[in-house]
This record gives sequence, C-alpha cells and structure tokens, in this order.
Amino acid sequence: MLSFECDYNKGAHNRILERLLETNEESLSGYGSDKYCAMAKEKIRAYCGKPEAEVHFLTGGTQTNQIVIDALLTKYQGVIAAETGHVSIHEAGAVEFTGHKVITLPHLNGKLKTGTVREYLERFYGDENHEHMVFPGMVYISHPTEYGTLYSLEELKELSKLCREYKIPFYMDGARLGYGLMSHGTDVTLPDIAELLDVFYIGGTKIGALCGEAVVFTHHNTPKYFLTTVKQHGALLAKGRLLGVQFDTLFTDNLYMEISRNAIETADVLKKILREKGYPFFIDSPTNQIFIVLENERLESLKKQVKVSFWEKADEEHTVVRLATSWATAMEEIEALRELL
Amino acid sequence: MLSFECDYNKGAHNRILERLLETNEESLSGYGSDKYCAMAKEKIRAYCGKPEAEVHFLTGGTQTNQIVIDALLTKYQGVIAAETGHVSIHEAGAVEFTGHKVITLPHLNGKLKTGTVREYLERFYGDENHEHMVFPGMVYISHPTEYGTLYSLEELKELSKLCREYKIPFYMDGARLGYGLMSHGTDVTLPDIAELLDVFYIGGTKIGALCGEAVVFTHHNTPKYFLTTVKQHGALLAKGRLLGVQFDTLFTDNLYMEISRNAIETADVLKKILREKGYPFFIDSPTNQIFIVLENERLESLKKQVKVSFWEKADEEHTVVRLATSWATAMEEIEALRELL
Amino acid sequence: MLSFECDYNKGAHNRILERLLETNEESLSGYGSDKYCAMAKEKIRAYCGKPEAEVHFLTGGTQTNQIVIDALLTKYQGVIAAETGHVSIHEAGAVEFTGHKVITLPHLNGKLKTGTVREYLERFYGDENHEHMVFPGMVYISHPTEYGTLYSLEELKELSKLCREYKIPFYMDGARLGYGLMSHGTDVTLPDIAELLDVFYIGGTKIGALCGEAVVFTHHNTPKYFLTTVKQHGALLAKGRLLGVQFDTLFTDNLYMEISRNAIETADVLKKILREKGYPFFIDSPTNQIFIVLENERLESLKKQVKVSFWEKADEEHTVVRLATSWATAMEEIEALRELL
Amino acid sequence: MLSFECDYNKGAHNRILERLLETNEESLSGYGSDKYCAMAKEKIRAYCGKPEAEVHFLTGGTQTNQIVIDALLTKYQGVIAAETGHVSIHEAGAVEFTGHKVITLPHLNGKLKTGTVREYLERFYGDENHEHMVFPGMVYISHPTEYGTLYSLEELKELSKLCREYKIPFYMDGARLGYGLMSHGTDVTLPDIAELLDVFYIGGTKIGALCGEAVVFTHHNTPKYFLTTVKQHGALLAKGRLLGVQFDTLFTDNLYMEISRNAIETADVLKKILREKGYPFFIDSPTNQIFIVLENERLESLKKQVKVSFWEKADEEHTVVRLATSWATAMEEIEALRELL
Repeated sequence: MLSFECDYNKGAHNRILERLLETNEESLSGYGSDKYCAMAKEKIRAYCGKPEAEVHFLTGGTQTNQIVIDALLTKYQGVIAAETGHVSIHEAGAVEFTGHKVITLPHLNGKLKTGTVREYLERFYGDENHEHMVFPGMVYISHPTEYGTLYSLEELKELSKLCREYKIPFYMDGARLGYGLMSHGTDVTLPDIAELLDVFYIGGTKIGALCGEAVVFTHHNTPKYFLTTVKQHGALLAKGRLLGVQFDTLFTDNLYMEISRNAIETADVLKKILREKGYPFFIDSPTNQIFIVLENERLESLKKQVKVSFWEKADEEHTVVRLATSWATAMEEIEALRELL
Repeated sequence: MLSFECDYNKGAHNRILERLLETNEESLSGYGSDKYCAMAKEKIRAYCGKPEAEVHFLTGGTQTNQIVIDALLTKYQGVIAAETGHVSIHEAGAVEFTGHKVITLPHLNGKLKTGTVREYLERFYGDENHEHMVFPGMVYISHPTEYGTLYSLEELKELSKLCREYKIPFYMDGARLGYGLMSHGTDVTLPDIAELLDVFYIGGTKIGALCGEAVVFTHHNTPKYFLTTVKQHGALLAKGRLLGVQFDTLFTDNLYMEISRNAIETADVLKKILREKGYPFFIDSPTNQIFIVLENERLESLKKQVKVSFWEKADEEHTVVRLATSWATAMEEIEALRELL
Repeated sequence: MLSFECDYNKGAHNRILERLLETNEESLSGYGSDKYCAMAKEKIRAYCGKPEAEVHFLTGGTQTNQIVIDALLTKYQGVIAAETGHVSIHEAGAVEFTGHKVITLPHLNGKLKTGTVREYLERFYGDENHEHMVFPGMVYISHPTEYGTLYSLEELKELSKLCREYKIPFYMDGARLGYGLMSHGTDVTLPDIAELLDVFYIGGTKIGALCGEAVVFTHHNTPKYFLTTVKQHGALLAKGRLLGVQFDTLFTDNLYMEISRNAIETADVLKKILREKGYPFFIDSPTNQIFIVLENERLESLKKQVKVSFWEKADEEHTVVRLATSWATAMEEIEALRELL
Repeated sequence: MLSFECDYNKGAHNRILERLLETNEESLSGYGSDKYCAMAKEKIRAYCGKPEAEVHFLTGGTQTNQIVIDALLTKYQGVIAAETGHVSIHEAGAVEFTGHKVITLPHLNGKLKTGTVREYLERFYGDENHEHMVFPGMVYISHPTEYGTLYSLEELKELSKLCREYKIPFYMDGARLGYGLMSHGTDVTLPDIAELLDVFYIGGTKIGALCGEAVVFTHHNTPKYFLTTVKQHGALLAKGRLLGVQFDTLFTDNLYMEISRNAIETADVLKKILREKGYPFFIDSPTNQIFIVLENERLESLKKQVKVSFWEKADEEHTVVRLATSWATAMEEIEALRELL
C-alpha cells in the first residue's frame, strides 16, 4: 500500500533516533533546561541570523498555536486569521478554549491579503461601537498555507508593516516551514521571516521529528514567565531533552533543509506525472501538498492501492483529494505511484 | 434634541416604577426566590401557553446569551449563528470567553436560512476529520434580527425540525421580541415560539424595563443547578425582586404587548414619512428599527437636531443610519422629526 | 414575621426610587455614559479625597470581584485570599471560571494577617520550583469581612506596604463598606482606603440600592478598555442610568453614610439586648452582622417568628446563627425582637 | 556527579528506543489510530484484568490531569484534592485554567482520608447555601502521593465506596504508579485499581518512557468525543505511534513492572544506608522517593557531588531534601553515594 495521505506517517529521521540513543544514558535536568535544548536554540538562532531571538520547544502544532496566541493576546483581544486557517477550522476550538475569538477574514488561495486585513482594521477602529467588539490583537498566517501556497517576500513585508503600524504581533504558523523555504519559487528566507515576523514556529512533527515545534520570538519578546504559561496549558515536557536532541540534530549539517528539499523534489516529479496524465489540479501549490480533482469512481479504485487525503467534494461526481510527499518520501514510491495512475 | 438612536434611552414604564415603590418596604427573600418572581414566571408561562415552561430572570442581553449558550453547550461544542449575529459581532467575545466558538454562517437579511444550516451540518458530519473540529451544538437566531427582520412561522418550523433532527437546541435571542410579536406582518405568536424553540428570552431592557430579560426553557430543559451557573458567571442578582416586579408588571394587563405595539405604530408612521420624503431604505424592516441611506452632508446637519445610530458606510458619500422607535416613543416625537426631514 | 436574615431583603432607599421616577423620562445615552453616572463618579471621587480616582459601576458583588480580579491579573497569576473569603467559598467558583486560582491562606477572625501573606510570598519566591506554580498576583480582602470584623488602619497600612513591595495590587471587597466606615470602633476612613488600596468597591446592593457596586481604581490604574472587559463578562448594563442615579443619590447629602449608621446603631442595641439575655456570641463583630450560638431547640422555636441565617453547626446541640441589621432596619423591629428573645 | 534529584533525568529504556528504530520506517496512520497504540491498549487492558477498560495516551502528567479533570467535570463542579496534591500546588493552575476549582482538604502524609472527604461532602450538602458554592464533582488522589506514600487496599475501597455513594468519579494520578505497585508493603494490585477507580493513569514519563501516560477509563466511561477534547486542549499528538510503541514495549514481558521494581530495590538499599548513617527521615516513604533532613552546611557540601531536590526548609539550620531512585538507577550509583555520605 502506497501512502501519500500526509507528511507525518513515518517515524523520525534516522539520525534523530541515533542521537536519542547516544544521549540516552546521560543524566540531564528537566523541563528544557538541558544542554541539548541550549545547543539547538543556539543553532536555530544562527540559522535565523538573529542572535537576540529566543527559542522554545513545544510538542505539536495546535498546542503551539494555542499557547503562543493565548500568551500574546490581551484578554479582550482575538486573533485575525484567514477563514481557511488551521486555527479557525482544524484545531477543535483550541484558541476559543483559551477565551479568545478567531476573527476570520476572506482568503485568496489560503492567504490573507494585506488589503483585506487593513480594511478590517480600519473599519474596526472607525466603528463608533468598537469597544463592544473583540479587539484584533494579532495576525496569524500559515506558511505554507493550508493549500500549500506561499507568501512572497513582498507580501510578508506588507503584512509586517501593517501589523507594526497597528502595534499588533505578526505570527507565522510554520508547521511545514521547511517545505516553504525549499520551494523553488520562493523568495523568502529564514532570516527574512525572523526579521518580519514577531513570532513564528519551525515545524518538526511534519519534517523529520517524532514530535516537536520550535517557537521563535524574534526580538526579546517572549512573554514573561513563558515556562509557567506552558505548564499552565499542560504542555511542559518533563524530559525536554526529547525536543532538544531532535532539533539539535535537525539543525546540524543542514539536515532540516535537506530533508525538506526531498519533499519538494519528489513533489515536483509527482506533479509532472499528474500533469502528463491529465489530472486537473484544484490549486497550484508550490510545496509538498498536491491537490487534484478525481472522478469518484477513479478515487474509489485508487484508494485500494494508495492512501490519499479526502479534501472536499468538488461536485456530485468529483472529489478534491490531497497527495502529500514528505521528508521521507522515496523516489521509488513516486515511481510506484506513476504505475498506478 | 430628538432621540431615535436606540430603544433603550428612556427609563422604565411608569407602572414598573410605581410597583417598585409599592413593594419596596416588603421584606423578601433573595436570589429570585421571592413571590414577585414566582408571579411573573406564572404569567409568562400562561402567555407562552406552556405550563411546563421554566422561566429565569437575568439582567441583560449579552449576559443572557453568554449564560444560556455556555450552560447548554458541551465543552467541545460551538454555537451556530449568522455572521451578522449579535453574539458574533457585538458582544466583545462573551461567548468565546466561556470557551466556545461562534460558528458563523452566511445570512440573508440578518436571518439564518435552514438550507444554509443543513448544508453546514451535513458537510460537518460528512467530513472524515470532523473530530478535529468544533462540534455544532446549538443554533442561535435573533428575532427580530440585527436588521429588524423577522422569521416566518414556516421558517421557524423548518429550523426547529432541523435542530431536532440533529438533536441540538434551538435558541432565540428575543432582546426585541415584543416588537417582533407586534409587527403587522408576522404570523409568529409567543406560543409558536414556545413550541418550536428549546430556549428563548423575552427582552425587557429594550421594552419597558430598567433592565432584565426573561429566559424561557420550554420543556423542563433548564440545565441542572442553573442558579449555580448564573452565580458562577457573576450574574445572580441578590435582590431578584428587581427583575420579578418588573416582569410581573410587564405581563400584567398585557402591558408588554401594548407598549411593544407603540414602537411598531410609531415606526410605521415614521417609515411612511421617510418613504414620502424619498429617503432610500437600506433594508425593509417590519419592526421598530429603520435603516436608511443618507448623504454624509445631510447626516451631519441632521445630527445637530436628532440622535441617530451610525450603522455602516454605504459608499464614500453615503452612510447607512438606523432610527429606532421604542415602547416610549411619542407620536409627537415623530411629528417633530417629520418637520426636520 | 421579623426579618434579620440578611441586609438585602428590602428594596431601595425611597430617595433612590424618587430620583428614578424624576429622571425616568429623560433620554439618556447608554452603557454608563449618561450624566448621572458622571455626577455620581464626581461625588465618589470627592468622598474619597482622590480627584484622580476612576469610578465604574457594576451590578453585584460576585460580578465585581470576578471582573476586577480577572482584569487585573496576568493570565498565570492567582489571587491571595483568606480561606474564609467570599471569593473563595461563596461565589460558585466565579474567579476560577475566568481561569485564575484563589490562593487561600489561614485567617484570623476572617482577616488576612500581613505576616501570613508575607510568609507565603517569601516562601513562594524562595521555592526553586515556583515557576511551576501559580504566581500570586493580587491580595484580596473584604472589609468588613465575612465575620463582620474590620481591619485597623495600621493593618491596612502594613498590607498595602507589603503589596507595593511585591508590586501586586491590593483589592478590597467593600460589599458592606458603609457599615465598616460607620462602625464606632474603626479608625479607617474612606480617604484612607482610597490611599492604601489600589482598587476597592463601595457596595450598594447591601446598603440602600436595588443593585449596584461602585468600583474605584485609585491611581489612574483602570485596566485598558475596561468597558470591553465588562461587556465580555456579560456585565455591561445598557441603561447605565440605573446605577448612575442610584449612586448619585447615595452620595448626595451624605445618604450612604447616614443609612449605614442606622445599621450600626440598630445592631448596637440588638447586641446589648443579646448580651443582657445571656446569648453567647460566636465572634465579636463591630458591624451589622451578629453571630450568636443557639441551642437547636431554641432556634427551631425562634424561626417561627424571626428569620435568621444559618451559619454553621457549633456542635450536635448548638448552631451558630447570624442576625443582620441593615440600612432599613427600624428600631421598632429591634424592640419586637427583644420581646421574642 | 551523582544524580538523585528526580526520576526523569535519564532518557528511555533501551528496548523502547530499539522498538522506535525497528518501527520507524513503517507508514502509520496518525492521532493514535495506529496498530502499536491498539496493541498497547490491549496489553494494558489485560494487565488491568478489565477487558472493557478504555485506554488513551497523553504525553505528560499535568496535561493528563488537566484533560481528565476537565473532561469529567460538569462546568459548575470542582475537584477535591489533598492540599498537598500535585494538581493543587505544582501544575501552575492548569486545572483552574479550564475553569474548575481545586477544592483542597487536609491531608495525612500526603493522603486524603475518607473521613475528611465524607465530612466535607456532608457539610457541603448540609449547607443551605450550597448552590452558591462550587459543587464537588470528583475526588483526585495520587498513588504514590507527593510524599511517596501509598494508600492501602482498604483505604481505596473506602474512598471508592464514598465516591460511588455521592456519584462522583474517583480519579488516581499514577505518575509513579509502577513504583507504588512494586513497593514491598503494598496490598494494592493493578486489577484492584481498575476495579475501584473510575479513571486513573499509568505514568510512563517517570518510569522508562521518553514521555507518555496511559489513561484508563475503567467501565466504558470515556467522555464522548474524547479525541476532540484532547485536541481542544492542544494535546493530540500527530504521531501517536510515539506513545503506542513506548507503552507496547513497557507492557511486553513485564518490563514496566520490572523496571519499577529496580527503583524500589535501589531505594531500599539507600534507605538502609541512610538509616545506618543516622540521617533522620522526614517521612517514612515506602516507594522511590526518600525524604531526609540535613544540616544546611552538610547539604551545601553534599551538593557539590550529588544532585538532590530541595523540598522545604525544616528550620533555620536544617533542610528537607528528596533523593529519588528510578527505573534507571544502578546499584553502583547507590554504592558511590554510600561513599559520599
């Protein structure tokens, strides 16, 4: 059975498991205060080109979004997100659980346009009754987005400028950040992100780790007593080494970028195959998620040999499905899939 | 200065203040356990034609929405509302504050269409990933809506049927319920509402009371220990008599309906005047809220003599404003306004 | 039937109802922006001797405690209170509902001793693991306390000094503040309180009002967008005039203090009677709440003619009961009670 | 440097890392739906002697307590715990964060006595004002407790009976459950726990795993849509295999029990040494945590060669410290410590 249903169906990169074994017998202090966490943080800061950045490790994406958003918002504020945003749709209300509204705005291919956000902010502050409404306290984007699309450097600069104008933090969900950085089309680098965003996270779960996301506060803006906030949310790992060793390995010898590139390269080949075979694309994604439209019958027969993700109904007879490559996809799997298509 | 900016700019109906004076020296037990609360509840039950209905008093609309929604939703559920719904826009996130998402759907003239809700529910349960999403646990409507529009009996029946099909409560925000019931065009009665809704409230603040809303659970479905929930939300009034006496008065000698009718009658005359004078209507509201489009200059000069509510910008040169009549509007005020227009 | 079970069993002072009638027809803006609120605030500031104080009106005590505490605490903080404190025991978890812990410390006659609080704070910050604990972010006291007892000026000064040393706000629940201020034994004035506390409230519900508490932030320390926070908690009254008119009346011609004195004077006579008749006191309260120990049989027979409050079981055969006088207690009621005892 | 400061300073048991390596390349479905989770659950059910038990995996102890308590409590309820309970003191308010009060009762050596709980429950329901208070909705104990002490079978039976009498769930925090089960003195087995408790967790983080706790609902009482609740709390691991493989390994060939026994055996030798050397014990713990009283000077010199945990000040000149053995402690480490003492 071939598996293209997601980018988290394999374990971890082998080097990570090896490092866990090597360091296993060491007696290390808990809660992220060990030397591997320190080393990983140092390397991430270097990759970001931001010596003053502060790095924290959490275990998963929804957890990270919940904690970062709750920690940065004032109690009467909400977070602006695209109506397709992960925090808005697919996190079981984790943000609202902490008392904050997700203020949803229309998207374009999964992206928030600066104009849309600006118009919202102007209308909000122009409304005489805005003190009876939830204050917009943050802008959330994901990069790549839910649709695999990417912001251009210019778009990020504009959104960043807008957020700074309104003095609200600009936050990037980077669950698949590596895939965005290694995409051929992108003009956005990690230092760009560290410069333009107030906080973002570098996703590990979907790129080579067993679990783990690295949150980066870019300018000494970690909320006070952040460890206490993490604990309060039930998210403080006793054996912080599990996250430290993983990220230290991912940011040694450029591993994170290299394995991210693998997902892009295998996706490129797969897209070419799909194009050649005449499968219509639902959206043109430059990263590792590929969305195509299939006849329902074709889908049923395909599903016997390949795992893919249901995305949405296109019409009565067609379905949008997602195929994802990942850090672990072998070119042989692409070839095997070519045979089936 | 004439005042048409809202329906809560006057105090209370005189009979209410008289009753408060008459009963003032009586020693009464607290927290809603007094005889006036009991009498008011009995009268409301009779008006609803539902002897088994349970009635509770709260002080304001946002408070009522927050408590009813929080008390009825399971922790992982959200409430479905029109994207223009009061709970969605104008309550400062009071619902999210309790941990629940407001799931917003498109509206038609402020109303939720059954088809829209049904499609949402079907898509939700049809989505293989729906356990990663907020469960829809309630349908919220307001009647009249934010735009002063009304549901027909047929529409309420359909929504009620849908909610019962999905086993989720159907809740009506009746902040201006009297104005809805007394509207000429309506075919919806209070017993209809008590039959079709699982819970609703009869608004007092905007119809003759100093404060107060009467929540009606229509079929022995008051959540267990509701008093404790009310207290936990900071909403339990020590001197429950303040609410009991007011609602007992409002539901004596048909006062609530009569004063509601006054708002409709004065609104009707005002609408006729506006139509004659050629003011374009933004929406056709059958109740006490009238929405017209004014040139910005005209608005500026008008505002020197009449208070009206800013609603939204129509375009660069025009503004939508709301004029509201109320239980307390005198026909003389309408005449005075006619002079100005 | 005589009623001594609480201090909120009567309506409002007559002058309040008269003022509500007099102002009833005026068209006033909503949400506390009317002129009566402004006038009341000005008068309260003058009484406090603090021109820079900021005053806000809310409807009830639990609501006020919930909102003030939630608005002032950072998300990872809790509030320190005596284990007998109202916020700890009798508010149905209204503080925890907002996500904050009530950190309870031992009391002496209902009061928090400075030494107890200091020891707690020192131990907290001395604990190497304190980042895994709830941070103490505020000190809450009630004055009078749940037992009717009062802090001395010296005690308030010490607690205030400690709070300022640790940079945490010092908050007083003044549900019965007037009774505390008018007690014979007290050396604490309203200006003292405005000087030593960061925030406190002047209770109206238990002293002459139908509902209402006046929150005073003493040094320009109202949390930003407090109106939004109040709305978010479901506590913003549309007709703010109801609170404004009441407090304006209470702080005109010294009414609040005079009617508070009535409770103290009637309580004094009642205490004298009880002492003469040999009833043992459970605690020596200098305010309007009187706690005595009764044989269960005596209590049963008494309850047929007088309403009193059950406080707690003393032992198998005795019960502690509370008798409360109030702003509305007539000396004739005391005399009638004397006959029964 | 010797390390006795806690039982989570080493990585994982080697067999766990080996199994992670062996299964690493397999393509597995996410969120706990993989075969290793299924196998682990089956084995745990067998160990519990409860085929109908339902098992779920979470990553850490505070997270587990937060989610189980929040999922089982009705919104107006709190959880009863010893005032020394982990949920009460050392979880940064994670329970209050979800809106629930921790109702603290006095302890005896870290344990809740049935009499104490019964008296509380009787007083609560006997109080006429209990609807103004937080309802006790659950009893929380830890086994071993914070002090390493254990409940006897008789004590668990009594508490269980009481909880069933009051129809509230009885929950055991088993962060160190293995150490409790392998203690020489205990008469409590895992099947006993599965019989008497409504829900409990088997701790992995402190017993051989990198992370992970196995929650057991003992009688088909998993709250509905528990996966959604876990996601809402930010605790749903995408690669559930990380937990499944670990627990499957721990419950294969009795590994969990065997490595737990190692902690007990090394602790026994250490206790004997301490006794021989005349160190006074702070409390008599039958499990892997040992509490002794040291002169401050002695402690300072000791800390240069051994890591121990500060527990609390005994007096000005003495400190209570905790030494913990674990699943990973080697007898050589005990010998090395003997030399130093």
